[in-house]
Amino acid sequence: MDAAEFRKRGKEMVDYVADYLEKIEKRQVFPDVEPGYLRPLIADCAPQDPESFEDVFKDIEKIIMPGVTHWHSPYFFAYFPSASSFPALLADMLCGGIGCVGFSWAASPACTELETVMLDWLGKMVNLPKEFLAEKDGQGGGVIQGSASEATLIALLAARTKIIRQVQSEKPELTEADIMGRLVAYASDQFCATLGTTSCCSFDKLLELGPICNKENIWMHIDAAYAGSAFICPEFRHLLNGVEFADSFNFNPHKWLLVNFDCSAMWVKKRSDLIGAFKLEPLYLQHHHQESGLVTDYRHWQIPLGRRFRSLKLWFVLRMYGVKGLQEHIRKHIRLSHQFEHLVLQDERFEICAEVVLGLVCFRLKGSNELNEALLKSINDAKKIHLVPCHLREKFVLRFAVCSRTVESTHIKFAWQHISQLATDLLKTWEHNHHQQ
Amino acid sequence: MDAAEFRKRGKEMVDYVADYLEKIEKRQVFPDVEPGYLRPLIADCAPQDPESFEDVFKDIEKIIMPGVTHWHSPYFFAYFPSASSFPALLADMLCGGIGCVGFSWAASPACTELETVMLDWLGKMVNLPKEFLAEKDGQGGGVIQGSASEATLIALLAARTKIIRQVQSEKPELTEADIMGRLVAYASDQFCATLGTTSCCSFDKLLELGPICNKENIWMHIDAAYAGSAFICPEFRHLLNGVEFADSFNFNPHKWLLVNFDCSAMWVKKRSDLIGAFKLEPLYLQHHHQESGLVTDYRHWQIPLGRRFRSLKLWFVLRMYGVKGLQEHIRKHIRLSHQFEHLVLQDERFEICAEVVLGLVCFRLKGSNELNEALLKSINDAKKIHLVPCHLREKFVLRFAVCSRTVESTHIKFAWQHISQLATDLLKTWEHNHHQQ
Repeated sequence: MDAAEFRKRGKEMVDYVADYLEKIEKRQVFPDVEPGYLRPLIADCAPQDPESFEDVFKDIEKIIMPGVTHWHSPYFFAYFPSASSFPALLADMLCGGIGCVGFSWAASPACTELETVMLDWLGKMVNLPKEFLAEKDGQGGGVIQGSASEATLIALLAARTKIIRQVQSEKPELTEADIMGRLVAYASDQFCATLGTTSCCSFDKLLELGPICNKENIWMHIDAAYAGSAFICPEFRHLLNGVEFADSFNFNPHKWLLVNFDCSAMWVKKRSDLIGAFKLEPLYLQHHHQESGLVTDYRHWQIPLGRRFRSLKLWFVLRMYGVKGLQEHIRKHIRLSHQFEHLVLQDERFEICAEVVLGLVCFRLKGSNELNEALLKSINDAKKIHLVPCHLREKFVLRFAVCSRTVESTHIKFAWQHISQLATDLLKTWEHNHHQQ
Repeated sequence: MDAAEFRKRGKEMVDYVADYLEKIEKRQVFPDVEPGYLRPLIADCAPQDPESFEDVFKDIEKIIMPGVTHWHSPYFFAYFPSASSFPALLADMLCGGIGCVGFSWAASPACTELETVMLDWLGKMVNLPKEFLAEKDGQGGGVIQGSASEATLIALLAARTKIIRQVQSEKPELTEADIMGRLVAYASDQFCATLGTTSCCSFDKLLELGPICNKENIWMHIDAAYAGSAFICPEFRHLLNGVEFADSFNFNPHKWLLVNFDCSAMWVKKRSDLIGAFKLEPLYLQHHHQESGLVTDYRHWQIPLGRRFRSLKLWFVLRMYGVKGLQEHIRKHIRLSHQFEHLVLQDERFEICAEVVLGLVCFRLKGSNELNEALLKSINDAKKIHLVPCHLREKFVLRFAVCSRTVESTHIKFAWQHISQLATDLLKTWEHNHHQQ
């Protein structure tokens, strides 16, 4: 395929993607396929000779789409949102076209520098303390990781390296293994200091944890993967109070800030803590600017060596939505979650199981776990909407997460009427069976 | 931006990317910017109100491109290739449009199943032993990681977990820390068993290492990040002999197989070894198929939880190039590296520093490291082509890596004439200065 054919096929693909997203509501949100559905549909091995674009293209609807869970359907209320927006898709096309690998400043200066500045923009949007910003000559700064798990791992490794070096300088007779055996990482059952847990979007009390960590010389990492995006709204920023005690902070614009996966933003107060843990300097990655202290080589900030030009997505989205547009998006989702909460509260068969702070509603039928498991099964078997459950203090709970960029009040009403009807049907049989027993 | 505007802007972006790649030769391969160039060119913080696409678009040439190192220029001979092809760009557009997150089978069955089958296709292309394939009911299988570093880390963690559990079952009195302090990882100064090292593309002797690892119950991981793609050509497959002794194997189609970054293929003989190390089962990620043993949940195979639909890139590229098309690409690069090697050998001022096996030529002026450092500086300062150096046994060596998909014999000739001329100029001054001293 040459550039001329790419022009043609690329435009067809743009239309296909636009069609897909524009009409996604008409697709069943959760697929009908059974495990192993795909293998019999395609060849055993790669073709020897090239196939045409048309041949591949027609297999998208035939082979791929029947097995896709439509995360951007307005009937998708499972897990947490995965961001998607047109500006981010455009930026990703540019990122692929440029196709640079930004492991060092010299490997593509724009890739590194835009990332540093975008993380400053984003840090300012959530009003992070100045120590977390790179600015012109700060000690801190941000980096894009692939996921919150990677950010947590990086924080853990950096903290471990830092404390091992400190202990070794005080007690040189101890080996690394001696020290490692005595290190302790404190976490709740949702791990590290979390703002907006996955199960029920609860919040750790940073203002209590923070001073203890600082006093005891404990590295404090805050994971706000989902909730972090909400802090761009002044009315939710108080949830981040206490971040000033942290060493590192992370949230995922790819969840709730309309920047397509992957874009997990991480900040540290001291860049040197990360670089100290991961520095790797083979000659082929050295360049004459690195000794100047003026440049960032992001390979020292992450597990992988290579990295894409992901900051383009932030740049496109932040500029084309503006802070106000993004605030509107967050506020709409939170408004819709409260709408759903109110619908649940009006039905006395149901209960709300955790405070609704952002876009997640945890709810259940008053009754046994088995009853609620049956309700979830009937919801997901019907495949009109899609939800997943969680456990809260031994209770089986349904999670209703407002996810899609295009979800509106009518979808929320539909979802509730549907759930309510399924509950009515279920309770009839359930009481009947229960009575018989 | 709505779908209608995306149709328009998306097509403009397709043309921009096509133009960029079609005319990339005319751009200076390495940028002129100095560290910190970008920050003064853009605002201090994100705009409150949305900006138009036009505003953002015109900044690409104004702000981004002046700081881009053009990895796909046929004058780029640095590092190793980073793959780029039009079918992969199309697949990435589709991947972004679908925007699913495939951490479990249920999160998007097509995403998981296509990946498993594509890794079988790819495994067969390099003629991996059957134990590494998933097929319908194998014990092994493949997964797409983000990078070879992640694959190595995953292998290391899986190996560590496996041996710790084994020792603990024999000696329950030992703590994990006791055991960890005694574990040993063997590696050369290029790390683990490597096929095609970054410095000079050398090969470890698998047929000697493998039997020792097996006998001593040592997990053997093979990293063929760059070289692996060449094994699709029968005449290079012998370099992989000995893989049958390995527990895990990895190579990067995103380097040399025309699949845009990121796509690092990793196979294991026993899926259970990986899953044992990383299994994570909160209720919200469980689904009713997982107990059947029929499905793969790739979150257990990697560090991140989330994952993109990266196998689409493999599917598009393998089908639209066909095995023969990809073999042609590999063979062209290797032919061009030998062309460069011959040009170097004809000039008695120069020497070749390592056997040219694939697409990398390590060479230097006969003389001091300082002389060669000066030569590299004059090459990279001229910015007609771009190279990076390496150290081989204390010697400063220039690496000439055939990288671009569109590089041809004329570019190789040009590069050599340019280097040769710069060497002539350098040697004149150098001998003059040397004489004066």
